[in-house]
Amino acid sequence: MPRFRLTIEYDGGAFEGWQRQEARPTIQRALEQAVFAFAGERVDVVGAGRTDSGVHAIGQVAHVDIGKPFAPGRVRDALNAHLRPAPISVIDVSEAVPGFHARFDAIRRVYWYRILNRRSPPALERGHVWHVARPLDREAMDAAAARLIGQHDFTTFRDAQCQAQSPVKTLDVLEVIRAGEEIHVWAKARSFLHRQVRSMVGTLVEAGLGKRTPDDVAAALAARDRAQCGQVAPADGLHLERVDYRPAPAAK
Amino acid sequence: MPRFRLTIEYDGGAFEGWQRQEARPTIQRALEQAVFAFAGERVDVVGAGRTDSGVHAIGQVAHVDIGKPFAPGRVRDALNAHLRPAPISVIDVSEAVPGFHARFDAIRRVYWYRILNRRSPPALERGHVWHVARPLDREAMDAAAARLIGQHDFTTFRDAQCQAQSPVKTLDVLEVIRAGEEIHVWAKARSFLHRQVRSMVGTLVEAGLGKRTPDDVAAALAARDRAQCGQVAPADGLHLERVDYRPAPAAK
Repeated sequence: MPRFRLTIEYDGGAFEGWQRQEARPTIQRALEQAVFAFAGERVDVVGAGRTDSGVHAIGQVAHVDIGKPFAPGRVRDALNAHLRPAPISVIDVSEAVPGFHARFDAIRRVYWYRILNRRSPPALERGHVWHVARPLDREAMDAAAARLIGQHDFTTFRDAQCQAQSPVKTLDVLEVIRAGEEIHVWAKARSFLHRQVRSMVGTLVEAGLGKRTPDDVAAALAARDRAQCGQVAPADGLHLERVDYRPAPAAK
Repeated sequence: MPRFRLTIEYDGGAFEGWQRQEARPTIQRALEQAVFAFAGERVDVVGAGRTDSGVHAIGQVAHVDIGKPFAPGRVRDALNAHLRPAPISVIDVSEAVPGFHARFDAIRRVYWYRILNRRSPPALERGHVWHVARPLDREAMDAAAARLIGQHDFTTFRDAQCQAQSPVKTLDVLEVIRAGEEIHVWAKARSFLHRQVRSMVGTLVEAGLGKRTPDDVAAALAARDRAQCGQVAPADGLHLERVDYRPAPAAK
């Protein structure tokens, strides 16, 4: 049975997260219903990242097995036709290499967090940024971020509901950049704990407001204590930017 | 009576344009109601550009006279508090030089038009871009745009309802840029006719699809005939990016 790899963009504000839940609007459910509408098959759409309620994606990746031999471009267009008017768009569909698994084969997830850092609230970007009205010190945030990079026990930055077996993760990149009125946080790792990015961003904002030094942030990490985490940043600003995989072997 | 200069961002999708109309949701009306709510004064808010229904602004400029002597920062914050939850944000308020007029003193209006040029529809940027699924030839669009720059009778690109006394305008800049999956059109002039930018963009897209050559576009302009205009581009992609004024005199 052909396995397809999908690249998907969505506005998370319209959904209760990625993962299928009975009678709830989720992205996975909308995709599975769209497959059923055009192919008449009940399928599982398996995503690389189970984004939370309100979290957006620019390049979520998923795989799905469809029995009928459709051309990938046909799958993309048919899904988009049946997804309308939900704010989900299938950007790309390709035939996956045998055994490809969107979740287990991912070698890196890239998250982009947008903070609007100005006095006035957002109008155009509402729902896509976290509005922080007080001026943030980007350099202080970046210095604090540097203390979180590497392999650590991230219990402090892990949601109580996280189901991962181990709290140890390797954070490859955590970078804080100014882009006009916005502050962007880029986070890259093979995988993240539940709400890890939003927990880290909330704590970095406290560093940017002068409430914590980089040493304080390092101490919070070392404490392995959820109570040491700052506020969790809202879902609005978080975007799953892309998911990376090992390149396919040159010849099969 | 102090005159204030406002810089305003809004999501035009929520409004029937800038201009006050009885019992309709317009940006001007929302601002005037917000002034009344905090200052108790019935005012006219005069905008630099009377954007159409659905057109967005990043930096609309307006002036308003308020009798009570509020500090500009207080006016900004109070307006934003009373505008909530409408997607209008007052970015900046300053005291205007005597006699300042947001509409008549503007020396340049800058419009930014966003086209999403890919097969799949927008999810994240829905309502903020025009989706054109077939590939556009940016260079052909830019070559056609160059033929519209300068002082011309823009009757071809003027809405039938336009109330301007003369159809002659001077277009300073009309530039077509590729930005990833998007094509951006930048238009700069002292002033524009009603729907001129959207009319020009629609015709440029026909050039980008190979339906018109740059010579065809120049001939359409020269015909001074509304029937020669291509489709009018939708409001979604259009943003009033900013309005320029002569710098205030150094000493009064």
